[in-house]
Amino acid sequence: MTDKTSQARRRVVIRYCPGCRWLARAAWMAQELLQTFEGTLDEVAIAPAESGVFQIWLNDVCLHDRREAGGFPETKPVKQMIRDAIAPDQDLGHSDR
Amino acid sequence: MTDKTSQARRRVVIRYCPGCRWLARAAWMAQELLQTFEGTLDEVAIAPAESGVFQIWLNDVCLHDRREAGGFPETKPVKQMIRDAIAPDQDLGHSDR
Repeated sequence: MTDKTSQARRRVVIRYCPGCRWLARAAWMAQELLQTFEGTLDEVAIAPAESGVFQIWLNDVCLHDRREAGGFPETKPVKQMIRDAIAPDQDLGHSDR
Repeated sequence: MTDKTSQARRRVVIRYCPGCRWLARAAWMAQELLQTFEGTLDEVAIAPAESGVFQIWLNDVCLHDRREAGGFPETKPVKQMIRDAIAPDQDLGHSDR
């Protein structure tokens, strides 16, 4: 078995502020992304971060930053960005319309 | 900002079988571990894996393998193993008794 802790290639990281109690939100988003990209994402990581932070990263690209965007991400645009980056032919169904 | 996608040092990976529909279980365990080890774990990753797999890894150590153990892990022993490895002085409260 290979080392499962080595860095995955198609990796999402959701960084959240524990003090703001955004863990449940981060876990919800993680499940949304894994459900949609089960065959194409290697992993979704949830990581405690600094105060006020809620960010979604795909590899080294930040897809959403709560501070910059002025709010939390919805699943649809996040899924579209991930699809466009790693699975351009994937139909997202309702999320695409 | 440092690259948030690089490998974290205190990292848990929960590997689950999507076909068995264990994503919700994996996400539940991820939240349990992050809630308890918010200050000491860098991240908990959820990763789709092969058929029938449910494993919990701390860095390169497998803490629980459903096949070997003959069942799913409870939170208490998993938290105790993680505590012993990375935060030996941490009191787990009810989980420790």
